[in-house]
Amino acid sequence: MTAEIIAVGTELLLGDILNTDAQFLAQQLSRLGINVFYQTVVGDNEKRLTDTIKTALSRADIVITSGGLGPTHDDITKETLASAMGVGLKLHEPSLQKIEDYFKRTGRVMSKTNVKQAIMPEGCIVLENNNGTAPGGIIEKDGKVAIFLPGPPNEIVPMFNESVFPYLCQKSDSMLFSKTLRIIGIGESSVEEKLSELMKSSTNPTVAPYAKQSEVTLRITAKAKDENEAKKLIDPVEKKIRCELGDAVYGTDNDTIYSVVCDMLKQKNMRVSFAESCTGGLLAQSITSVSGASNVFSQSFVMYSNDAKHRLLGVSEETLEKYGAVSEDVAMQMAKGALDVSGADVTISVTGVAGPDSDENGNPVGLVYIGFADKENVSVKEFNFTGNREKIRMRACVSAYTMLREYLLNK
Amino acid sequence: MTAEIIAVGTELLLGDILNTDAQFLAQQLSRLGINVFYQTVVGDNEKRLTDTIKTALSRADIVITSGGLGPTHDDITKETLASAMGVGLKLHEPSLQKIEDYFKRTGRVMSKTNVKQAIMPEGCIVLENNNGTAPGGIIEKDGKVAIFLPGPPNEIVPMFNESVFPYLCQKSDSMLFSKTLRIIGIGESSVEEKLSELMKSSTNPTVAPYAKQSEVTLRITAKAKDENEAKKLIDPVEKKIRCELGDAVYGTDNDTIYSVVCDMLKQKNMRVSFAESCTGGLLAQSITSVSGASNVFSQSFVMYSNDAKHRLLGVSEETLEKYGAVSEDVAMQMAKGALDVSGADVTISVTGVAGPDSDENGNPVGLVYIGFADKENVSVKEFNFTGNREKIRMRACVSAYTMLREYLLNK
Repeated sequence: MTAEIIAVGTELLLGDILNTDAQFLAQQLSRLGINVFYQTVVGDNEKRLTDTIKTALSRADIVITSGGLGPTHDDITKETLASAMGVGLKLHEPSLQKIEDYFKRTGRVMSKTNVKQAIMPEGCIVLENNNGTAPGGIIEKDGKVAIFLPGPPNEIVPMFNESVFPYLCQKSDSMLFSKTLRIIGIGESSVEEKLSELMKSSTNPTVAPYAKQSEVTLRITAKAKDENEAKKLIDPVEKKIRCELGDAVYGTDNDTIYSVVCDMLKQKNMRVSFAESCTGGLLAQSITSVSGASNVFSQSFVMYSNDAKHRLLGVSEETLEKYGAVSEDVAMQMAKGALDVSGADVTISVTGVAGPDSDENGNPVGLVYIGFADKENVSVKEFNFTGNREKIRMRACVSAYTMLREYLLNK
Repeated sequence: MTAEIIAVGTELLLGDILNTDAQFLAQQLSRLGINVFYQTVVGDNEKRLTDTIKTALSRADIVITSGGLGPTHDDITKETLASAMGVGLKLHEPSLQKIEDYFKRTGRVMSKTNVKQAIMPEGCIVLENNNGTAPGGIIEKDGKVAIFLPGPPNEIVPMFNESVFPYLCQKSDSMLFSKTLRIIGIGESSVEEKLSELMKSSTNPTVAPYAKQSEVTLRITAKAKDENEAKKLIDPVEKKIRCELGDAVYGTDNDTIYSVVCDMLKQKNMRVSFAESCTGGLLAQSITSVSGASNVFSQSFVMYSNDAKHRLLGVSEETLEKYGAVSEDVAMQMAKGALDVSGADVTISVTGVAGPDSDENGNPVGLVYIGFADKENVSVKEFNFTGNREKIRMRACVSAYTMLREYLLNK
């Protein structure tokens, strides 16, 4: 079974608002195992809307529209949809009653134009709107289904969940269940290379990679009639992938590299502290974004100036003088200093050139040293990141957490 | 002149990601005075993508695609677009060189599949990608223009601004010019109240408010043939608004509250330092996101535990014991301590309950104290923020910067 999504509204064509309705509908349809091959955005223009609806009806079993159900003359979705399907319009008394009640309840005056919202395609299933004035509807004709829903997210979401999802469930024999594997430290293309066989051969479940900022996610999606059956399909494929990618798989679904590292530290009963220069607090901010971070994190230092690095972390002035702030030696001394001052079990330091300009010693933008210290060892790694200031800082942060994770894995 | 936007990607059809590319492109095209009548989302399927491209080319002068330029076998936008327009493909040596350099620079191994990204439609204008491996391109044929761009927002946005916008400017007669005023400290509804007359009466330029996270922006948009003519239209309206809203207008266009505060500190030749508990580094991270922050910021302290607050900032153990970490007194002592340790001219401290749970003393989620110290005074303000952990931390951060800005305005 296939469906198409049509979002109607000039504000979408102008880019004034994001098309969150289309994403919501797409997510729900994919959960229902209904394939969506096209999404379209079109304005409140009768000719273009008619063409779009007819094309969609010719390609898909189900067409769902969002928006254009308002009271004003330029809201024409319902009317255009009805005429495209050759269905007449008729005042729907219960809806009119509901609209009148709505205005009474909210203490506002009902304008005559709102009557228009109660005029529905003949014989359609009327969908009550408990969060606005515009009812939605389902038209069934010639084996096709057209569903028109209001545009505002706070109206379309509850209406879909209350009325449309159950309706579509009956039509759909199986649903889709997904599990996401989160991968760090290797690029999308290498993941694709390692798993190309598996990805090409897998049909149920399917395996698809997505490159997110500084990580790759693999989505395993199974078509099944319930969660248990889905699990049986997904588990063996997940095993294969983990076997292929090993430790590069750092988590699943809603995990982040920060929450995962936070949990690992908790399990090992260890505390981390950071000494940040170019990341300026990003590492600390990231771990404290995880609730419960206080079990593994007590303090952190943002030491931007040479003087601060020297006074508070004990980085030697000679080293700063001789090698400059962006250097292996300074990164090591920052990590060591943070370890001594904080009393943490492990510390990470970051010093580098986030840009936009190279530093006073002519170090290029993107050069970053990440230092690492525990009670036994101090080490440092050099990186050359690309991108703008924000991206370089983010990559340095993720690389630091990746190093920390590797350390904890071998601990 | 008309354009159509085609976003390519299964992850869009599944609702995994929001179609922010389409919104960005729509906004830019509307700025250029180019009409967009349709936006389409289609998957990485050759037949359907070909149909979509051909339909778009038959309806519009310009077709812009986003996504599907990756190295993997299911990325087919460029190839499909070229064949739909009857253009051959050819290895583009400079692009290959750039991709190889990219992998060298980032110290990663280039996979064979990446070569595919350097194979371009013959005779197309190649658009360099300075934030990723996939170049974009512009194909001109039979009076039509097809532009293919990468999908990731951090790649498509700079590529469009650097290469596509100037290219389309030449093709467009009258353009839209916008100036954004950034407002902080008052809500959207009060802004609308104060400016309702102006907003209703203005046609060229138009004035439209948008509520962003913890701030309101007003966009003044003028239709004009060049920047000078637009300026003449926008300036008087901006004056009126500033007159009405006063200091609530903190900046324009790409300013952020962080960059504005950073500039104010620079002008006054002052240095700031932070003592953060519940924001965990967010304040430091925010000011260091501004390039040149090193002139006004030398160090900052993330003191999450009571012990750290005491040892490094000299917060008295009795106070911590008696009032708890989330208290006026601790906020004040943190700010004072940071002032002494850092030698900065002004310091801000944040201690509060970011959630999800209330703290051990039963303080409610969202209770935040922001302390403030300079060489003359120490003060503190209490806030009760709503929202989840992330929102509460962000609101605390923005409130701290708003306080700092007010202080600097009166300095």
